[in-house]
Amino acid sequence: MDVTEFKEFAQNMVEYIGHYLETIRDRRVLPSVEPGYLRPLIPDSAPQNPDRWQDVMQDIERVIMPGVTHWHSPRFHAYFPTANSYPALVADMLSDAIACIGFSWIASPACTELEVVMLDWLGKMLDLPVEFLACSGGRGGGVIQGTASEATLVALLGAKAKMIKKIKEEDPKIEDNAIVSKLVAYASEQAHSSVERAGLLGGVRFRLLPTDDEYKLRGSALQDAIHEDREKGLIPFYAVATLGTTSVCSFDNLDEIGVVCQKENVWLHVDAAYAGSAFICPEYRYLMKGIERADSFNFNPHKWMLVTFDCSAMWLKNPEYIVNAFNVDPLYLKHDQQGAVPDYRHWQIPLGRRFRSLKLWFVMRIYGVTNLQAHIRTQIAHAQEFADFVRSDSRFEIVGEVIMGLVCFKLKGSNEINEKLYKAINASGKIHLVPSKIKDLYFLRFAVCSRYTQSPDIRFSWDEIKYLAGQIIASSKE
Amino acid sequence: MDVTEFKEFAQNMVEYIGHYLETIRDRRVLPSVEPGYLRPLIPDSAPQNPDRWQDVMQDIERVIMPGVTHWHSPRFHAYFPTANSYPALVADMLSDAIACIGFSWIASPACTELEVVMLDWLGKMLDLPVEFLACSGGRGGGVIQGTASEATLVALLGAKAKMIKKIKEEDPKIEDNAIVSKLVAYASEQAHSSVERAGLLGGVRFRLLPTDDEYKLRGSALQDAIHEDREKGLIPFYAVATLGTTSVCSFDNLDEIGVVCQKENVWLHVDAAYAGSAFICPEYRYLMKGIERADSFNFNPHKWMLVTFDCSAMWLKNPEYIVNAFNVDPLYLKHDQQGAVPDYRHWQIPLGRRFRSLKLWFVMRIYGVTNLQAHIRTQIAHAQEFADFVRSDSRFEIVGEVIMGLVCFKLKGSNEINEKLYKAINASGKIHLVPSKIKDLYFLRFAVCSRYTQSPDIRFSWDEIKYLAGQIIASSKE
Repeated sequence: MDVTEFKEFAQNMVEYIGHYLETIRDRRVLPSVEPGYLRPLIPDSAPQNPDRWQDVMQDIERVIMPGVTHWHSPRFHAYFPTANSYPALVADMLSDAIACIGFSWIASPACTELEVVMLDWLGKMLDLPVEFLACSGGRGGGVIQGTASEATLVALLGAKAKMIKKIKEEDPKIEDNAIVSKLVAYASEQAHSSVERAGLLGGVRFRLLPTDDEYKLRGSALQDAIHEDREKGLIPFYAVATLGTTSVCSFDNLDEIGVVCQKENVWLHVDAAYAGSAFICPEYRYLMKGIERADSFNFNPHKWMLVTFDCSAMWLKNPEYIVNAFNVDPLYLKHDQQGAVPDYRHWQIPLGRRFRSLKLWFVMRIYGVTNLQAHIRTQIAHAQEFADFVRSDSRFEIVGEVIMGLVCFKLKGSNEINEKLYKAINASGKIHLVPSKIKDLYFLRFAVCSRYTQSPDIRFSWDEIKYLAGQIIASSKE
Repeated sequence: MDVTEFKEFAQNMVEYIGHYLETIRDRRVLPSVEPGYLRPLIPDSAPQNPDRWQDVMQDIERVIMPGVTHWHSPRFHAYFPTANSYPALVADMLSDAIACIGFSWIASPACTELEVVMLDWLGKMLDLPVEFLACSGGRGGGVIQGTASEATLVALLGAKAKMIKKIKEEDPKIEDNAIVSKLVAYASEQAHSSVERAGLLGGVRFRLLPTDDEYKLRGSALQDAIHEDREKGLIPFYAVATLGTTSVCSFDNLDEIGVVCQKENVWLHVDAAYAGSAFICPEYRYLMKGIERADSFNFNPHKWMLVTFDCSAMWLKNPEYIVNAFNVDPLYLKHDQQGAVPDYRHWQIPLGRRFRSLKLWFVMRIYGVTNLQAHIRTQIAHAQEFADFVRSDSRFEIVGEVIMGLVCFKLKGSNEINEKLYKAINASGKIHLVPSKIKDLYFLRFAVCSRYTQSPDIRFSWDEIKYLAGQIIASSKE
């Protein structure tokens, strides 16, 4: 494909994308295809000779779109939002064109340096303690990870390396495996599944601790667990506090947890994957009170801050444990400027990395802080609109608190009737949401996800839920 | 930014990218900036109010380009190639617009299903054994990982889970940590640094074994090591064979290694990150003789097959160990079709994933197999051109074999003079390459990387090397 064809193809795609996104509301949000739908639609092997790009364009509606769940439809209320914005999309085009692999500074200095400064910009927008910022001149700084799962794992591996080092300094004869077998990490039982998975991947014990009645992990629960485990001869080394849990968007009491971690010499990682974006608005920063005691902090601009996946922002007060733990530097990756600047390959699981900070730069500049704040506030206001609808109907009730863009709710009554409601909603396919369960309580989650969402969309979704609930209640009375 | 502005902005970017890539040869390949160059060029925090997209466009040349190492310049010969092509770039635009997170089938069926079929297409292009292909109807299948590092780690974690399960079936009382402390993995001392790093991340012992005189790991070296370790009471569980090592692009003797692994019940992972793309050409498949005995196979279309980063293709004969090892399924991620189709979140370290198979689809269709093969063959021919230049100059010698697109070479004489040559080349900045070292032998690596490379570029690079070598030799005689 020569450059002339590329320009035609790309401009065609730009038109397609503009049309797709601006009319996304009109598509069925959840596809009705069955597993295996795609294979019969295309040949069973790659063509020997080139297909025309026009034919590829045609196949998008024929092959791909019937199987797409439209995450950016205002009818999509599942999981949490994932970001999508025009400035981020254009930034990614540039990233793909430069297509450098920024594993070291010399491999493309701009790739590393823009990331360092963008994580400072972002940290300042959240009013993070200066110890997390590279511009403070200390050891701290930020890095873009692919996902929050990786951030949790990287922090765990750093904490593990730190604790092993400390214990071996005290007792040089002890073997690594003897230490690892006693390590224990902590999180709330409401922590994301990837937190528990980090324990499996890292090969350490993970305890999921009970929350209070508002689904929050409290300092006392952590303190009790640490006491118990020390009695048993175990070594507490890592705790994850979640700000905005996936099930109900509850906020662990970071202020209490931090005091315990500091006292007990336990690495404190804060997972604010979804809710962290809201901290760009000063009125929500009370939820991260105590952040100054954390060792690492992570949130996903690719969820709620209009930067397309993957862009998970992570800050570390002291990256040296992570950098040193997995540093296996062959000559072909060395360069003269090592030490003066971060070589981000040491901060992450993969070696390679895209030029992802361009997305942050474009989005922060072309929106500006004010419009990014407005985006958060608008989505939270829409969640409140939905919560008001729920509250106005005596057949329903709210589960948990409504603080961010998530409303958890249920029909008063049994789990079974709510499971029926969930199935009816997704079978109808006009809107899409997912359920959750805490202990024995089954409920539905309504997340405000699309940047296209307006009040009539909230009304539309509520009307659909109300209509299907009415049918289910009527049929259960028959 | 509204859709009208997006179209203007994106079309502007398309023009910029076309111009950037088509004139990339004219830019200095290695930037001359010093660490910290970027921070003073931009404000120290994000703007409150929006910047115009036109201003952002202007800043690309002012802020970014001075710090870019131009990986797609025909003057770039460092590391290995990373891919860049117009069809992949346009595919990524679509991926960014759909912006689904394909962690489960229901989260966007097209995202999972196109990936399954594209990995079949690709596997067929390489003539992989059918046990690796989903279309065989067996357990096997492919998945797109972010990087080869992740593939190596995922395979290691699968092998670890498999061995722990096996030993616990024989002796249910034994503790996981007692097993893990005895596990031992193997690779050649020429394996990529990420292989050793996978051992560190996975918390297991990794032995790097000596190669033969052609830098290849042989079956006998592996067999000896396994014998030794079993004598010591250790448990061999995982071996990595590298097809195309980073330092000299040597090929481990897969055929011999596979026999040993099968006999010893050791999981065999094949890392063909760079060279795997060449196996789309039948004449290079002799290098993967014995592939039928591997448990997992990985190569990076994002290196040499014109699919932009990140697209690391991995196949598993039996993914169940990996799927089961880290499966922590909360209700909000469950769906009705589980089991009928892969839920790729269980096949990888992160939870989230982009719609990456679009890139494979666009590239395989718009190039066609014939043109992809031609790309590989052309680049290998250019490497041979360069090797001929080296051979024609009696001051130089070749290191290792020249089979793929990499030529390792040195000035006859000391390491010091070759270090001087390396420094002179990168100081001049007209071309860029990196050195390597095996045992005490220091040499330079010349990789053919850019899809724009033509014979005059090879001549240009050789002339530059020859000129600087002449200067260094002259000054050493003074």
